[in-house]
Amino acid sequence: MNKTKLNELTTWLTQQDISLAYLTNPESIAYFTGFESEPHERILALFVPANGEPFLFTPALDVKEAEHSGFLYDVVGYLDSESPFKKIKHEILARYGTPKQMALEKGALTLDRFEQLTALFDTTAFEFDLTPQIQAMQLVKTAAEIEKLQVAGSWADVAFEIGFQAVREGISEQEIVAEIEYQLKKQGISHMSFDTLVLAGDNAANPHGTPGARKIAPNELVLFDLGVIANGYCSDATRTVSFKKPTALQAKIHAIVLEAQLTAQKAVRPGIKASQLDQIARDVIESYGYGEYFNHRLGHGIGASVHEYPSLVAGNDLVIEEGMCFSLEPGIYIPNEVGVRIEDCVYVTKDGCHSFTKTSKELLQLD
Amino acid sequence: MNKTKLNELTTWLTQQDISLAYLTNPESIAYFTGFESEPHERILALFVPANGEPFLFTPALDVKEAEHSGFLYDVVGYLDSESPFKKIKHEILARYGTPKQMALEKGALTLDRFEQLTALFDTTAFEFDLTPQIQAMQLVKTAAEIEKLQVAGSWADVAFEIGFQAVREGISEQEIVAEIEYQLKKQGISHMSFDTLVLAGDNAANPHGTPGARKIAPNELVLFDLGVIANGYCSDATRTVSFKKPTALQAKIHAIVLEAQLTAQKAVRPGIKASQLDQIARDVIESYGYGEYFNHRLGHGIGASVHEYPSLVAGNDLVIEEGMCFSLEPGIYIPNEVGVRIEDCVYVTKDGCHSFTKTSKELLQLD
Repeated sequence: MNKTKLNELTTWLTQQDISLAYLTNPESIAYFTGFESEPHERILALFVPANGEPFLFTPALDVKEAEHSGFLYDVVGYLDSESPFKKIKHEILARYGTPKQMALEKGALTLDRFEQLTALFDTTAFEFDLTPQIQAMQLVKTAAEIEKLQVAGSWADVAFEIGFQAVREGISEQEIVAEIEYQLKKQGISHMSFDTLVLAGDNAANPHGTPGARKIAPNELVLFDLGVIANGYCSDATRTVSFKKPTALQAKIHAIVLEAQLTAQKAVRPGIKASQLDQIARDVIESYGYGEYFNHRLGHGIGASVHEYPSLVAGNDLVIEEGMCFSLEPGIYIPNEVGVRIEDCVYVTKDGCHSFTKTSKELLQLD
Repeated sequence: MNKTKLNELTTWLTQQDISLAYLTNPESIAYFTGFESEPHERILALFVPANGEPFLFTPALDVKEAEHSGFLYDVVGYLDSESPFKKIKHEILARYGTPKQMALEKGALTLDRFEQLTALFDTTAFEFDLTPQIQAMQLVKTAAEIEKLQVAGSWADVAFEIGFQAVREGISEQEIVAEIEYQLKKQGISHMSFDTLVLAGDNAANPHGTPGARKIAPNELVLFDLGVIANGYCSDATRTVSFKKPTALQAKIHAIVLEAQLTAQKAVRPGIKASQLDQIARDVIESYGYGEYFNHRLGHGIGASVHEYPSLVAGNDLVIEEGMCFSLEPGIYIPNEVGVRIEDCVYVTKDGCHSFTKTSKELLQLD
């Protein structure tokens, strides 16, 4: 349970004159309570009042797990045969009375649940959106969080090493993915932060390609994009390596992407804007004439979830601060020809940044 | 692309006098278009008009993938630096004019996106909820869908076999999970339908326990709950086996759960209600005095997603029809003592049902 952050939330509620916060997003709930759970179509909710004690609302079959998660307040369960929203209403009224103003996670609450809620609380106002507030609370990481992100980053380095060693002629992308995840799971990592990507040749030239039965051949680039969840924190990193000797074009594209990545990474410091970092990387790639092939933002925040604030994208004038953590991941994807992405996640220090992953970014040739 | 189902949707729109359907749920979009994608925080949407051609709206970096997915209509991409909802509005107006009535997937659309949408379409009505309509369309499976579910079921049988062979003294739950997923991935299965559960002893007595470093010891029960996604369709099955000789209590609980499972499975036929099936299994367990330890519904529908309609739960008077597919998964969980669940997914025939998984449900003793 994160008592500091719960207090921070309660203070905000009091300042805004909000009686009750209703959290819906399993990732936010894990962040505040320590209880990690995927409720699927069932209801998982955390209620935090401005005054009084919070409570967790979970499916009956998760109550025991929630009680052992380190959350120090009540856990209320509901059976599949019960109406969850009626039970929620009953609990709220018994604990806090009718809320005048209830803040919602509008970025996570679905419309049908909102309609059920408003039907039951017809005198309550629902103006406030918790999503940006929680994102802002998660934006600057504590030293303890950065330590966890470093651990997750080291596991990504381990994963690269396993992946690089698995590369050989005739092995498929999918088999390399299996090898990486198997070795990590045996070492105690139970979840990757997203589906591991191993993409070769023209498949790497698709920025969201899917690993498949495609076999790796000599003189192809192989792109690895991967991350793990360790102690609730995520890593995310990308390397593009060459199987046997790269062609001149492959080496050239790799060098450009690397220059863009390093230039952006060197520019990171408190005071610079998110949009400026995106532009710095983009300028490098555009200067070589490949701007049209870098068709996504430079990066995204990382923490307890793999994609969070800040977004490093044109138009986002957010000022970077010490303790923010985000990816820097320029790429060039020339359809059917060559694809390269290089990504490190970094944390901002008082005058620069450090990377969570240490695997060399130079073009590695595997033989 | 599922032309039949798209036509069915269009017909429904026309009947209800709805100008446009806006689909949000990646699983529904995959079901209608064949394009499988997880957009994370980006926007993925399918627009289906009552009159005219549908179009897919995706992040720019997914456009190529979407165009190659078999979807025969336009794919519109947006860049990270663009405002997706403004672009959506522009596309809708250019293609169909201002919609009088737009139906939404209220079970998947988040409140913040709904607020953005209503701000842009202030003369459009948003009364209709697509979620129950799509669930109803998916309720009765076609012969082709049942065939895919059978293939997914056979893979679950393969997974059980791998898992059973991996069990030995001192191996951890997590290592068995790693073994199962590794062997399947090497054979071409890229996704499990949910996190594979291998739970031993007291950990199996928690219906939503998590596999960990806990090692397997003799005279313990080991619960396997797993499924794969094959060709876009899911399997889901559970077996509880004994490592070495089971205790008398373990054997007794297993026999009761098996009796409940088989009794419910024999009762499945067109005309019976979903709630009746739940009650039939519950009656068996209650007759032995363990009713309080069966604290979840009997089952859930299965298809392109692992949890869909119908829900086999008290209060659901839905009448079962030929072609419906669902799980039958009674369990008894006595905290800190013993946990048993046995699950098959079945499809309803004209006078009974068939199971998608063939692995024996008798108490298997692994030595």
